[in-house]
Amino acid sequence: MPSLAPYRNDLDYSYAPGIFPSMECLKHRPDQVRRLLLHSSASGREGADKLRELADALGIRVEEADRALSRISGKENCFAAAVFTKFADDPDPAKPHVVLHHPGDSGNVGTILRTALAFGVEDLALIRPCVDLFDPKTVRASMGSLFSLRVRVYDSFEAYRCAFPVHALYPFMLDASLPLHRVLQNRPKTPFTLIFGNEGTGLPPEFAGFGQPVRIESNDKVDSLNLAIAAGIAIYGFTGVQSFTGVQK
Amino acid sequence: MPSLAPYRNDLDYSYAPGIFPSMECLKHRPDQVRRLLLHSSASGREGADKLRELADALGIRVEEADRALSRISGKENCFAAAVFTKFADDPDPAKPHVVLHHPGDSGNVGTILRTALAFGVEDLALIRPCVDLFDPKTVRASMGSLFSLRVRVYDSFEAYRCAFPVHALYPFMLDASLPLHRVLQNRPKTPFTLIFGNEGTGLPPEFAGFGQPVRIESNDKVDSLNLAIAAGIAIYGFTGVQSFTGVQK
Repeated sequence: MPSLAPYRNDLDYSYAPGIFPSMECLKHRPDQVRRLLLHSSASGREGADKLRELADALGIRVEEADRALSRISGKENCFAAAVFTKFADDPDPAKPHVVLHHPGDSGNVGTILRTALAFGVEDLALIRPCVDLFDPKTVRASMGSLFSLRVRVYDSFEAYRCAFPVHALYPFMLDASLPLHRVLQNRPKTPFTLIFGNEGTGLPPEFAGFGQPVRIESNDKVDSLNLAIAAGIAIYGFTGVQSFTGVQK
Repeated sequence: MPSLAPYRNDLDYSYAPGIFPSMECLKHRPDQVRRLLLHSSASGREGADKLRELADALGIRVEEADRALSRISGKENCFAAAVFTKFADDPDPAKPHVVLHHPGDSGNVGTILRTALAFGVEDLALIRPCVDLFDPKTVRASMGSLFSLRVRVYDSFEAYRCAFPVHALYPFMLDASLPLHRVLQNRPKTPFTLIFGNEGTGLPPEFAGFGQPVRIESNDKVDSLNLAIAAGIAIYGFTGVQSFTGVQK
């Protein structure tokens, strides 16, 4: 393997910066890990020592690489990074999905991955153009949950839909007539897909014709909710043990 | 007024970077605005022209200040910034509150401000040590919602509690026994306070003795939810038109 480059989209590998994301990478994608980078000052930190033990147990090469770590993370205090080969998994056709259409912010995408995993949605799709799923910023914002999920990037929503023709579609749109609590009164029994648009522009108008468009009830004092917040509320609502039945006060 | 400095905590003024946040500042806090900075290339952009018109109508001085804008925002494409005098308002004792205890990330605080306003919670408190409420990064993440809210920073939770002794307290804690949907079955009739801890450490253990601790039901595949996501779900649940009654499936 050549020396480590700063991350680029066209590389076939990326970095999981930070002790916690690196641990998730080693635990859930050990076959993808090429090596583990540790900072010389990491030794003695509980997380870093555990990480080294796990790497040793898995036969993964460990290197002290202070300069590479600061180059990769852009930070001085990055104590670890797993170097991993990029991967892709098809979403499970029997499970609920989250689809992000043209997401533009890696922090939002990472946060949504983390939230989806927390609420048991383990299958996601991104529709191009979109942020780079493997950008270390996305990996870090996901806190490594990327490594526990099945995620694939599609060239178009049509390509996604062709692969999953029976999922019940729920596009989230500001001008949808049905509010979330009404939709949750009849939560789907079949696998469903929650669809969220770009941070600035939302979903294109044609999504109003797909499935059951939904809006999250909020007042008009703000332009819109943050994308990750909207997705968090929706995923919690669709997946919780509670039914969120939405009886009117 | 002296020439504009890069933002510092000890200045008595700050910046609302961006066209949308600047517009919110002029609309909701016109008396606090010292001047409006516009980029020379902003002219002709719809938002920038509206901003200039509003400033003219309010008698606010407008300056072309390309270099100041890039220095303030750290970005080349910042088209506007309102320069405003810092302010503080007491939360309304008759209204629901959100309290952020030792928040460490300005993006999270800004996003929570925006979410609170969207769901009608207009009174908030921050407990020191905490990020700077007026840091331009916070203002930007709030999309200017800071200017529509009553927010005060307190030296301790005790100081906040002394000012608002009757609010029903709901500390959000990972190890609380009662899940959110159960708490929402008996939403408080009195003013309430939702309390969220630091991103890394959560709330100190003594908060388990305050009011009714709550956890947001999630699985153990992630360490915790992102702070702004947890707050978003909680605020939506406590304030929505739906009752989130939480009938078991």
